[in-house]
Amino acid sequence: MRTQVAIVGAGPAGLLLSHLLHLRGIDSVVLERRSETYVQERVRAGLLEQGTTDLLREAGVGAGLDREGIVHEGLRLCFDRTMHRIPLTELTGKNVTVYGQQKVVRDLIAARRADGGAVHFEVDDVAVSGIEEDSPVLRATIDGRQVEIACDFVAGCDGFHGICRDRIPARHARTYEHTYPFGWLGILAEVAPSTDELIYAFHDNGFALHSLRSAEVSRLYLQVDPEEPIENWPDERIWSELQTRLGTDDGFALREGPIIDKSITPVRSFVAEPMQYGRLFLAGDAAHIVPPTGAKGLNLAVADVKVLAEAFDDWYARGHRQALDSYSDTCLRRVWRAQDFSYWMTSMLHRMPGDSGAQARMQLSRLRYVAESPAAARSLAENYVGYTPG
Amino acid sequence: MRTQVAIVGAGPAGLLLSHLLHLRGIDSVVLERRSETYVQERVRAGLLEQGTTDLLREAGVGAGLDREGIVHEGLRLCFDRTMHRIPLTELTGKNVTVYGQQKVVRDLIAARRADGGAVHFEVDDVAVSGIEEDSPVLRATIDGRQVEIACDFVAGCDGFHGICRDRIPARHARTYEHTYPFGWLGILAEVAPSTDELIYAFHDNGFALHSLRSAEVSRLYLQVDPEEPIENWPDERIWSELQTRLGTDDGFALREGPIIDKSITPVRSFVAEPMQYGRLFLAGDAAHIVPPTGAKGLNLAVADVKVLAEAFDDWYARGHRQALDSYSDTCLRRVWRAQDFSYWMTSMLHRMPGDSGAQARMQLSRLRYVAESPAAARSLAENYVGYTPG
Repeated sequence: MRTQVAIVGAGPAGLLLSHLLHLRGIDSVVLERRSETYVQERVRAGLLEQGTTDLLREAGVGAGLDREGIVHEGLRLCFDRTMHRIPLTELTGKNVTVYGQQKVVRDLIAARRADGGAVHFEVDDVAVSGIEEDSPVLRATIDGRQVEIACDFVAGCDGFHGICRDRIPARHARTYEHTYPFGWLGILAEVAPSTDELIYAFHDNGFALHSLRSAEVSRLYLQVDPEEPIENWPDERIWSELQTRLGTDDGFALREGPIIDKSITPVRSFVAEPMQYGRLFLAGDAAHIVPPTGAKGLNLAVADVKVLAEAFDDWYARGHRQALDSYSDTCLRRVWRAQDFSYWMTSMLHRMPGDSGAQARMQLSRLRYVAESPAAARSLAENYVGYTPG
Repeated sequence: MRTQVAIVGAGPAGLLLSHLLHLRGIDSVVLERRSETYVQERVRAGLLEQGTTDLLREAGVGAGLDREGIVHEGLRLCFDRTMHRIPLTELTGKNVTVYGQQKVVRDLIAARRADGGAVHFEVDDVAVSGIEEDSPVLRATIDGRQVEIACDFVAGCDGFHGICRDRIPARHARTYEHTYPFGWLGILAEVAPSTDELIYAFHDNGFALHSLRSAEVSRLYLQVDPEEPIENWPDERIWSELQTRLGTDDGFALREGPIIDKSITPVRSFVAEPMQYGRLFLAGDAAHIVPPTGAKGLNLAVADVKVLAEAFDDWYARGHRQALDSYSDTCLRRVWRAQDFSYWMTSMLHRMPGDSGAQARMQLSRLRYVAESPAAARSLAENYVGYTPG
């Protein structure tokens, strides 16, 4: 087998890259370790920046988004038992859209299928070689058969636990990692959202977030001790804690309903530098993880893939390699901006273990300031809706 | 002896309070442990917010400021070997003024003397009692004589190491303290400033700040290891390090000259809550210390004293005690805002010991963002020129 770009991973990054390359007449093959059902059903991020939705629509995969996406023009900060609105669109001219990652994946798989694209699931034993010699080869087991795929480039879109990142020799690579001293307990509940905009709450007990997935499904999060097993969080404790942290004196009422999904995820930052080596290019979670507070993970993956697709196009259509050569630098400017913003949001909204009270007071001061200063609100908003460093 | 308000400490807070009370017809006595020469010569802060200069002028003590103050309408951020200007006045309509704290002290002492005010220096054995019983008494040794001053209120303006704060019983008090893992080496140099606006520099070697005192005297700072003795910093090493950290590719040249003052100060945050107890009111450094990066220390002291003078006026002229009762809450809103801003500036501009490189990359990303985003620049500017929480 031969292709131009071999893509490891059929998450949003890999699938969107394959689709964008197809639109530019560039051939690709996507290999995914998991089953199609798994990638279409796993619960992940769900907040798309306008740059992301614009790109999906321009790429002709916006029908689901138009049908089911829920456009948000603001968000709420909840503290001092009061809701404070940040009018994102009024401040920036842009909006964000709630649309689950699995729906993006579903739409992209359908598009690849409709275009006759090669997307293989349950692929085992993927091995990458030749990235230093301008003749990369992917070996893998597809449907029980060993195959060898010769290609021009390999795109590592295989997530944080993927195999591609390790192909960059340690002497050329640097990684940065920080694990925050708390986790997020996330639930899906079969209940109409109690809010039409996301609510980020700061409370003495810790952070809480009220998000949503649809008119019938709410998505909620609690800051928790990452060491605490999920068995310690029966549904009634979760609702009780959400009621406390999202409690206000201005009439907000949190609706409860059956919890259909429950999990604890760590909150961490990770960056691999550079994001490219020889003929290998990393995109999305394979290269970077952000704390979820800024809702940047999926959007960074899409931003990477946009840069990469354009760089491949420059290469194939015009013979220019400058955009490919600067791929990592281009992406990392946005990645570090997102890391800093996510850190800022995270440290404003979470109770810090071991805090004597000074940090909480500074956090409250910052929240009040963001709620009352147009400049501070605009700064939050322009990062939240998606900031492209100049 | 008897007075209405007994003031401990003849720094800017104590002297300004005494002067503002005098303007309102309220009698006070100021007691200072140090000599007059000492308080007039010690090198301290030198950047006044517009709220501070407005207040000094309105209070009739702005002549020196008008004559010698240097108005600044912007500041510079130096990173990536480039200068980036933040146009403070264009962004906020306000300016800041370079005018050394010792000049403020000099002007206030002169004003108190001209008005026949009681300001005693080299006062020993100051002891405060009766603040819980509505009959406070100060005992002290003035010019070798033991005196007893009966008063209505005591103002503790005696700095971080003063005696007043400890008069608040531990069960009513809470303190917050954080010492940063670096110090500031500050110098005064007899050389015309190399810049007409302050330069805040972020460099791999650490933070540097170019400030000034007059057309002939420059004030410069270096982030240093707080454990390193000042003997390790001969003049040539200081200049060499300043040249490195303030080095640019856009033509900035740092002028060197004789160093006439050199000291290392810790960088720390401190807040005492509440700032009042019974008949005792704390103001300035007695209640709070901020890292110097935001240039807020002296301005917070002035802001405290303004609130306190108006509150005493409400009490004496109108019999209202509400402003006195809420003195601490009013001041602490500004104090925590300044703490958070100073923390933000400090953590953006200093190299963090033990940083793997991730923090430096986030810091650089934030600096570039502040330099290119009008919203972020305005947020920095409105805090820098003096932000009063609503």
